[in-house]
Amino acid sequence: MSLRTIPARRGTAARARRGQHVRIVNTHGTQVVDTWAFSAEDVTEWMAMEASRAWFLKLAAALGDSFVTNRRRPILTLVEDTSNTAHDTLMAPCDAQRYGLLGVQGYHDNCRDNLHAGLRELGVTIPATPPSLNVFMNIPWTPEGRLSWGEPVSPPGSYVVFRAEMDLIVAFSACPQDILPINGTTGRTTEAHFSIE
Amino acid sequence: MSLRTIPARRGTAARARRGQHVRIVNTHGTQVVDTWAFSAEDVTEWMAMEASRAWFLKLAAALGDSFVTNRRRPILTLVEDTSNTAHDTLMAPCDAQRYGLLGVQGYHDNCRDNLHAGLRELGVTIPATPPSLNVFMNIPWTPEGRLSWGEPVSPPGSYVVFRAEMDLIVAFSACPQDILPINGTTGRTTEAHFSIE
Repeated sequence: MSLRTIPARRGTAARARRGQHVRIVNTHGTQVVDTWAFSAEDVTEWMAMEASRAWFLKLAAALGDSFVTNRRRPILTLVEDTSNTAHDTLMAPCDAQRYGLLGVQGYHDNCRDNLHAGLRELGVTIPATPPSLNVFMNIPWTPEGRLSWGEPVSPPGSYVVFRAEMDLIVAFSACPQDILPINGTTGRTTEAHFSIE
Repeated sequence: MSLRTIPARRGTAARARRGQHVRIVNTHGTQVVDTWAFSAEDVTEWMAMEASRAWFLKLAAALGDSFVTNRRRPILTLVEDTSNTAHDTLMAPCDAQRYGLLGVQGYHDNCRDNLHAGLRELGVTIPATPPSLNVFMNIPWTPEGRLSWGEPVSPPGSYVVFRAEMDLIVAFSACPQDILPINGTTGRTTEAHFSIE
């Protein structure tokens, strides 16, 4: 297992073949990693949170559940998880406009730009920004359907493992959110790690 | 108020100016209407369920809540609702592949194709299929986050009204789902109506 770095506040992407495993490690325990996946054969086929919820019929995946694409094909299956987190499927990846609404003046690193920059490293462009799987992100819901920005609950070094169900490209962003408490209340954003096994 | 028809199992689209109201009527009480909205100035700016949940911090909008676009700008505000339904924001619009998984042989009408056909009537094409706002669709959640395909709960003739927060294009599909119970257990799909006021 060769760990690769997702630099703090940055994005990266990698290829995986069907049957390989994608491990994402919450190295410091407090870092949300926005994650996307795309078919290697046609990057307009991507992992779709809205189709995945309709497939596993839950707000968040359980062990053994498969995320599916916008063509309803399994792409990533959750096979191992030591993070104690219901990885959020509900919230949009952060973007420049979001930080504007939060009062930030000027540019702020953001997951949307990190996604597209990570894909560019592989020479890939996509025509839109799909909703992300927000790995290690703790978004509690109430029985009435209210949502809130929870603090991280995953231990340092905890990880998730997904099985690739097709040849794919996976993209990550170490979320640079330092205003809301999703990466902890200290405002410290960190690196995370991943491996393709 | 001049009501226009959303034909059973079909899609349509219309333009609305900022400040106008978009009314959607559940004429027979059992019909889900998948709904999308796009900025009239740039149709790659669309109503985004994932950004909207992050804005109003609920699984479904309450009266007064605004849906926002993928650029975080308000586009439709829920201002009136007689349907007693928490209009679903979680589930993907149905598509051809979905009906294949449900055992359908050959073509089945579907909301994805209806969206693109409706937009084509206005000469508009878009590069992807955004998650839909599933008006009148009853998707209960449990405290544990389990989802299910609920039967319709809206009275015949009940309606929702949205205020347009920008000049926009709104698209509708009278959902042709006749296998799951979301349009009732009879398998009868019907027309619905809308108006731009």
